Amino acid sequence: MKENWKKYLVEFIGTFFLVFTIGAIAFFWNEGVIAPLAIGFVLMVMVYAGGHVSGGHYNPAVSLAVLVRGAMEEKDYIPYALFQIAGALCASGLVLFMSKEYVITASPEFNIINLMIAEFLFTFALCYVVLFTATSSKVENNSYYGLAIGSTVMVGAFAVGSICLGAFNPAVAISTMVLGIACCTKLAWITFGINLLAGAFAGWIYKIINND
Amino acid sequence: MKENWKKYLVEFIGTFFLVFTIGAIAFFWNEGVIAPLAIGFVLMVMVYAGGHVSGGHYNPAVSLAVLVRGAMEEKDYIPYALFQIAGALCASGLVLFMSKEYVITASPEFNIINLMIAEFLFTFALCYVVLFTATSSKVENNSYYGLAIGSTVMVGAFAVGSICLGAFNPAVAISTMVLGIACCTKLAWITFGINLLAGAFAGWIYKIINND
Amino acid sequence: MKENWKKYLVEFIGTFFLVFTIGAIAFFWNEGVIAPLAIGFVLMVMVYAGGHVSGGHYNPAVSLAVLVRGAMEEKDYIPYALFQIAGALCASGLVLFMSKEYVITASPEFNIINLMIAEFLFTFALCYVVLFTATSSKVENNSYYGLAIGSTVMVGAFAVGSICLGAFNPAVAISTMVLGIACCTKLAWITFGINLLAGAFAGWIYKIINND
Amino acid sequence: MKENWKKYLVEFIGTFFLVFTIGAIAFFWNEGVIAPLAIGFVLMVMVYAGGHVSGGHYNPAVSLAVLVRGAMEEKDYIPYALFQIAGALCASGLVLFMSKEYVITASPEFNIINLMIAEFLFTFALCYVVLFTATSSKVENNSYYGLAIGSTVMVGAFAVGSICLGAFNPAVAISTMVLGIACCTKLAWITFGINLLAGAFAGWIYKIINND
Repeated sequence: MKENWKKYLVEFIGTFFLVFTIGAIAFFWNEGVIAPLAIGFVLMVMVYAGGHVSGGHYNPAVSLAVLVRGAMEEKDYIPYALFQIAGALCASGLVLFMSKEYVITASPEFNIINLMIAEFLFTFALCYVVLFTATSSKVENNSYYGLAIGSTVMVGAFAVGSICLGAFNPAVAISTMVLGIACCTKLAWITFGINLLAGAFAGWIYKIINND
Repeated sequence: MKENWKKYLVEFIGTFFLVFTIGAIAFFWNEGVIAPLAIGFVLMVMVYAGGHVSGGHYNPAVSLAVLVRGAMEEKDYIPYALFQIAGALCASGLVLFMSKEYVITASPEFNIINLMIAEFLFTFALCYVVLFTATSSKVENNSYYGLAIGSTVMVGAFAVGSICLGAFNPAVAISTMVLGIACCTKLAWITFGINLLAGAFAGWIYKIINND
Repeated sequence: MKENWKKYLVEFIGTFFLVFTIGAIAFFWNEGVIAPLAIGFVLMVMVYAGGHVSGGHYNPAVSLAVLVRGAMEEKDYIPYALFQIAGALCASGLVLFMSKEYVITASPEFNIINLMIAEFLFTFALCYVVLFTATSSKVENNSYYGLAIGSTVMVGAFAVGSICLGAFNPAVAISTMVLGIACCTKLAWITFGINLLAGAFAGWIYKIINND
Repeated sequence: MKENWKKYLVEFIGTFFLVFTIGAIAFFWNEGVIAPLAIGFVLMVMVYAGGHVSGGHYNPAVSLAVLVRGAMEEKDYIPYALFQIAGALCASGLVLFMSKEYVITASPEFNIINLMIAEFLFTFALCYVVLFTATSSKVENNSYYGLAIGSTVMVGAFAVGSICLGAFNPAVAISTMVLGIACCTKLAWITFGINLLAGAFAGWIYKIINND
């Protein structure tokens, strides 16, 4: 624990900037076409900055995938998730504080089945990419893991951003409630659960493919 | 075969996400300007994730180029192509399942000569880039191969996406039929054949340039 | 000093192109959506080009962060900052010279608290990313530092570019006065000070996280 | 010579795809905002593919910069430039052949001084980036040189693409005449000369900064 507070701080900072960017784009920027680019790249940036300290997860589903795959200590999971969610909540609160004078258009009603499929698929893709590019000994010291991880979120937001929350991250799912982006609380909690499920599934797939 | 099912699974997953992204962008996203960016980057992401397992082809034309160049086993070619096409079909079907309520505007009539030239050129470019960045011993362990490969598809889609299907990939060509993006079946099969031809040609060019 | 003029020249060239691009986009290009992309990438390019000569700061706040972290000599700080500001002023002057025939729309009034928060956050993020990706011995010889650094500015400009100057750099803050982009001189000087403060803070955070 | 035809072929292929993309975007794609992205990235892709064979210049100004800097053989310069120009002309001709049914809007009149400044600055930046990222022994085996080089052209096209031809490359300058993008032949030849001048200047600057 004494050692690990540095990792938790890095996870807090990274998730803070991820969610702050999501909120700021939603509240202060009108061109929807750009949101996935900015969100994908802020994740990339924070993964590159903190990757060698904490792993650079910034996402309880990614931490779960890494846990299932066996690349982090069990006792670290809860603190990781809590600091990630704390960073997300601080960022959401700050955006709300800064945006008194702005309005955001409520998100549309979603088809619940499509939302679940879409959140599952791209959270799985995100965790799959994290495990294969950032935790495999075969590609140690590569320089592309952050680009790959951030781009997965960008692609997911482009592909299915109009039919789900586009969270791919339980900490972001909670933030969409706080920020009022999600049309209702139920969808955010469904997203929260689906994201974790997809993370666990990706960890299991990784172990199957790399069990030799 | 026993060993290789892991490679086939990785090829299935990667082609699935490539085609799912293509279909999702076409059905759920209205800004055409962004499609090439998302499609190029999902390929990049999957190449980085699966490259060290299966080679990360996700494209029967690329597999053919790699086969002609001599960097994969002959017995692997047919399973690779089949798993790629299966991934593409599953993704197409899922997009159709999810999109009941959406409509897609039919693609325009194409000039058949232009379509053939355009598909040939950028499928050649794609396979040329794969062979030179991902199979050459002179640049082993580089970190840019995925970026280069994905970006080739992005550039091709920007440059000639309005005068051909922009497939550069036989598995994608088949998917455009399933998804109803291709205006007619004949163009999809022409694209299928031209893509394979360009892959074989790229393999031959590589061998000429690197035969010392 | 005799040795170091090469570093200063590289800092001058890099900051010149950074600010010239900012000014040129503002004066010659109408699509605001593209500005953050171009500005982030010109920084990336110059960081990659000059990084192994001068460190590739191009920003007095980044140099301050590097100084606090202990990765540059004290006697170099003032010349670095002066050459950076000189490059910025030359670029601003050249844009003004070239743009006689163009007009720029004045920036809107800003909420001063939001401006300070936004400039602080992303200048901190920029310096944090520089220190962790370009000055940490744990990630020596990585190939991603330029991409991460440039992308941080891009993300910041997307996220908060509409509620502050989007400088994240004292040399740029000064340039916004010269170019007439800042609505008033006071905001530019506030930005100047906040940027330096954030740089020092990032240096301190880095030392805390890496003090073992 | 016998050995070198492979290099020349690679230079031909790369310049062909660079100019084909420029022409195709101009003739087949209406969204001007995307052109710099596609053009920068096709250069990146070809630099990564051919860099370890021919150096990946695709530009007589870059070859001149590399020659002045001392990183290519003198006898190679003329063949390099000829194959680059041949690739550019073939690509231009093919675009014209394919585009019978399309029209292109003529470029506007340019301010001649601004055009010369803009072409000089970004051709210099391009060659400066090539020399520092791709010919310096201090950064051997880096994975970012292609990204940096391609992005320089992208940034230049965004920053000054509306006040000059945005060629930064004599082979492209010639192509703008063939394609009818340049409003008049005189501007293309001025661009041709300025590009070469900037290349030589970048070679000289590199030698000054690295003469120890």
